Amino acid sequence: MCQLLGMNANTPTDVMFSFTGLATRAGEHKDGFGIAFFEDRGVRLFVDPESALASPVAELVKRYPIKSHNVIAHIRKATQGRVMLQNTHPFVRELWGRYWVFAHNGDLKGFAPPLHGSFRPVGDTDSERAFCWLMQELAKAHASVPSVDELSRTLAELLPVPAAYGSFNCLLSNGQALWAHCSTHLHWLERRHPFGAARLADDDLSVDFGAHTLPQDRVAIVATQPLTLGEGWTAFASGELRVFEDGVNRPVRAG
Amino acid sequence: MCQLLGMNANTPTDVMFSFTGLATRAGEHKDGFGIAFFEDRGVRLFVDPESALASPVAELVKRYPIKSHNVIAHIRKATQGRVMLQNTHPFVRELWGRYWVFAHNGDLKGFAPPLHGSFRPVGDTDSERAFCWLMQELAKAHASVPSVDELSRTLAELLPVPAAYGSFNCLLSNGQALWAHCSTHLHWLERRHPFGAARLADDDLSVDFGAHTLPQDRVAIVATQPLTLGEGWTAFASGELRVFEDGVNRPVRAG
Repeated sequence: MCQLLGMNANTPTDVMFSFTGLATRAGEHKDGFGIAFFEDRGVRLFVDPESALASPVAELVKRYPIKSHNVIAHIRKATQGRVMLQNTHPFVRELWGRYWVFAHNGDLKGFAPPLHGSFRPVGDTDSERAFCWLMQELAKAHASVPSVDELSRTLAELLPVPAAYGSFNCLLSNGQALWAHCSTHLHWLERRHPFGAARLADDDLSVDFGAHTLPQDRVAIVATQPLTLGEGWTAFASGELRVFEDGVNRPVRAG
Repeated sequence: MCQLLGMNANTPTDVMFSFTGLATRAGEHKDGFGIAFFEDRGVRLFVDPESALASPVAELVKRYPIKSHNVIAHIRKATQGRVMLQNTHPFVRELWGRYWVFAHNGDLKGFAPPLHGSFRPVGDTDSERAFCWLMQELAKAHASVPSVDELSRTLAELLPVPAAYGSFNCLLSNGQALWAHCSTHLHWLERRHPFGAARLADDDLSVDFGAHTLPQDRVAIVATQPLTLGEGWTAFASGELRVFEDGVNRPVRAG
């Protein structure tokens, strides 16, 4: 089992606190880590096949306050695919002149759809194969970048297909919104005014969000397991897809 | 004018010394920097719209010995496109299950080819548009990843097309080889046994490559201007394309 972290906010927000919490769990998830930050339409992707506990790249991410509207991070415990850079999540592809970022926690057995389109895996994980298939099917379903609502409906139709082959907890973003699909374990949280304090569940570190925020700020966090104590995390149901836009969560219903 | 740096080697080699030399020139090239390292088929891309002199990401790259067979770096002085992350070189796309990395120094006026294929620019630079066109035309020319020689011949036919619209000094790699095309300024150098010492042209820093290498190591460096004193840099001719594989340079002839 890997661990996922997603952040979606209505104002550029750093994730140093949450990423520190995630990295603390890297002891058992030592097969690499990655984190992608959208800044406008651009993406910064930091990936390292080293453990997030030892990697100088992870150290940089914990200390350098990169502010973003959409972040996806992943720490890896390899199930399929060797421990190599090309197998390290998140993965990035371009579609319709936008970058798409994807990370997966789980294990798909025998999901080998035909990839006749423009998206081919570079590494050998089930995760990147599923991402390439998703991109291929999105490209077929829409001629150019659709609205967030249209994308949500298309994803609600597509995501059950790989999910039928195993566990498929995943995060996807194109810089406009964050989509989160749960098979087994995923939790979400909205932070909004009045902002309180939180303490990392695995580390002796606290933060008072009230000191760093404005009343109109809204931040949504998605994580495999709750990262903090003293905040109201909600578990996803199995098979549930949620979309987060401008720091606000809403469920997605097909059709 | 931006500044380019490319490295191709037959053994995993770090570029801390050369990148330090490049970053020293960031005073006049303050509109961002980027560096991409291939490790096997995977790519680490560090990009920052900050100057390489001030960026904590550049500081990491100077200190963390990432060893790679193929590296492309760029420091930017904006000519077209705003100073934003999505306009920061190098750019990355996937084709035939391999990542392709591209950086450009120069200025194209009015190169706006139809992009009907699977590669669209995310930012608004002439450089990313030319890269997307190159990827589109490579995808048309070959059904799957061809040999380095075949790719070189196709690139020799394609590169003069954008080059006719202005200056097109560029570096391209798919992790197997490094291609370098010169319009105005580009220099190359091969380091091989017996390795000597070199001093950075712009900085008070020397390195004795003999102390860090084996007799069979071969490393080729391409840069806009010679980075070191005491080494035999060769200028590219205008319109020249060279390919570097396993640290060895050879010219490319069409047909």
